[in-house]
Amino acid sequence: MASAKTVYIGVIGAGGVGKAFLSQLAALSTRRPSPKLVLCYISTSKKSLYHADYTPLNISSAIDDLASNSVGAPPQLPKIVEYLSSVPAGSKAVVVDNTSAQDVADAYPLFLRAGISIVTPNKKAFSGSYALWQDIFTSAATSGAKVYHESSCGAGLPVISTLNDLVDTGDQVTRIEGVFSGTMSFLFNSFAPTQGAGGKWSAEVKKAKELGYTEPDPRDDLNGLDVARKLTILARLAGLPVESPTSFPVQSLIPAELESVSSGDEFLEKLPAFDALMEEVKTSAEKEGKVVRFVGSIDVGAGQVKVGLEKFDQSHPIAALKGSDNIISFYTKRYGSNPLIIQGAGAGADVTAMGVTSDLIKVLAQI
Amino acid sequence: MASAKTVYIGVIGAGGVGKAFLSQLAALSTRRPSPKLVLCYISTSKKSLYHADYTPLNISSAIDDLASNSVGAPPQLPKIVEYLSSVPAGSKAVVVDNTSAQDVADAYPLFLRAGISIVTPNKKAFSGSYALWQDIFTSAATSGAKVYHESSCGAGLPVISTLNDLVDTGDQVTRIEGVFSGTMSFLFNSFAPTQGAGGKWSAEVKKAKELGYTEPDPRDDLNGLDVARKLTILARLAGLPVESPTSFPVQSLIPAELESVSSGDEFLEKLPAFDALMEEVKTSAEKEGKVVRFVGSIDVGAGQVKVGLEKFDQSHPIAALKGSDNIISFYTKRYGSNPLIIQGAGAGADVTAMGVTSDLIKVLAQI
Repeated sequence: MASAKTVYIGVIGAGGVGKAFLSQLAALSTRRPSPKLVLCYISTSKKSLYHADYTPLNISSAIDDLASNSVGAPPQLPKIVEYLSSVPAGSKAVVVDNTSAQDVADAYPLFLRAGISIVTPNKKAFSGSYALWQDIFTSAATSGAKVYHESSCGAGLPVISTLNDLVDTGDQVTRIEGVFSGTMSFLFNSFAPTQGAGGKWSAEVKKAKELGYTEPDPRDDLNGLDVARKLTILARLAGLPVESPTSFPVQSLIPAELESVSSGDEFLEKLPAFDALMEEVKTSAEKEGKVVRFVGSIDVGAGQVKVGLEKFDQSHPIAALKGSDNIISFYTKRYGSNPLIIQGAGAGADVTAMGVTSDLIKVLAQI
Repeated sequence: MASAKTVYIGVIGAGGVGKAFLSQLAALSTRRPSPKLVLCYISTSKKSLYHADYTPLNISSAIDDLASNSVGAPPQLPKIVEYLSSVPAGSKAVVVDNTSAQDVADAYPLFLRAGISIVTPNKKAFSGSYALWQDIFTSAATSGAKVYHESSCGAGLPVISTLNDLVDTGDQVTRIEGVFSGTMSFLFNSFAPTQGAGGKWSAEVKKAKELGYTEPDPRDDLNGLDVARKLTILARLAGLPVESPTSFPVQSLIPAELESVSSGDEFLEKLPAFDALMEEVKTSAEKEGKVVRFVGSIDVGAGQVKVGLEKFDQSHPIAALKGSDNIISFYTKRYGSNPLIIQGAGAGADVTAMGVTSDLIKVLAQI
């Protein structure tokens, strides 16, 4: 096989996941001499660092170098495509998008058509419009460039790869169900534990924010959109042409009165007045011997996707979840009544970067 | 990339897994036009079917054709290597070993050195001597041929691929623990359920045999060797140079007095006399509020592997397992105190073949 001897890597995004990825990339390039991995581009939304002649950047110090030696604002996305598609003859290019930016996601078809493979945890490309989804996979199929996005659902947990394997080998996925948000997992495991009483809803949200488990404004977790995006991706991989993450029922846990308060802090301040609502949900489940959880589910046969609160028996694996773990159950024809289950941390910089790095390794084996 | 346009596939073994694999291969070759998949060889231990000029066999009828049009006893393994390594120029060859034969496993280095990739659920190659393990992976690295064996542990569950991803991305796997045998899972979930009393040990073994969950002689499950082989494979992938599946403590559930009785039937007949032993184990666990399960564990730091009975809290995921499911927990540095867990059916022809087919798809993408 005429594998590329050198692979040029461009990294967009240098936040928590970007840093963890670069650390894993530095170790990978030391452990595996072939193909030779060259970091040639790195940028944030405000800065960029690269050389017109593809002189390798130092992977270990790239983020510090970006801070001190940046060449200035990043080029427009088509210029980055042009740069990465002009790497020296006989070599290949991969772009690693560690952002959650829609504009970068929108440019994926450009990268792919130019023969540049993509690995990313960015959910936006795969949960945006169905037209973008089709454009991405058609562009990849045409050029032969690869696109991998394991960490777009469940971080480094083997969720996307397992679903792809089930579908690719001809199994019929009938239902996918699970807890897809580390934040929601933590909140409900604390608010409505299988053992003990649990705290008040507003107090648990406040605690989750203090522990860094929520977005800066907790409403960005409580609106359910993050879970809806992940469900959109899985449903599409299972064969449902879901139009967008807002084209199916998604239950928001933000009281209507607090939708438009101006800040996350104001939201947290006013949330206790609505504790009775969530307490009622919890008590109603308890009366049936159950606990309430925030889940997503896909009924493939019926073509239905939904996100929201559901009740589970105390012995159900979803009820027994711990900490901020995710759990994803795949019900399929081959697996019968007992689903294939994947469980574990579904958020965090290191495990998210792990999904990106293992995707990169799979791409390197194919280009 | 100069991918092979045609891939010639030789299948060794046409039992339950072989049949299920061929059915999945037929569907795959219809769904994916590229690369062109040609079944050119199929054999059991007694018969074989192939054409010297590589005329394609009919995938859908191959097993029937083997029964009626067989060219006779299969060639010696070096002859099969020679045949598959002489496929038309520009094409590639993959051998699919659906047997559990040691002699086929011993020939893997020959296949790999000849550039023939291997996909297999056969545990023997990877759990035999450490010298064979090294020979296999050195041969593959030298020739560039691929070797994939997802179904050698947990059937189609993503166990091997997940462990490889953890290791390849630089995570430190500290501990692996789980229920690795569908038979043992079924036996203990019935014998010592978390709810209800459970049956007598000998009755549960008899029932498991009647349901087809055991080997023809149940002692081949109860001796623990099947679990020990899987642990050997995982331990080696995690970096421990385990010499063989008998080089660490493995608890056999066969009473010493019944080790040498002449048949499985005689064993089952005499087993009730030893029920008190297992009842004592069960009662002792119950006194601690626990249940007993047959598990395997690998402590990577201490270099320790062991297989046998252990007690678990009723709320532990291992205790809560259902039916004949497997569960495998990976404790790693990145995942912290909550492990990455994979759970589901770990045996059965269809899900075993699924692991083989998805391995084949990965190989096809790389050769």
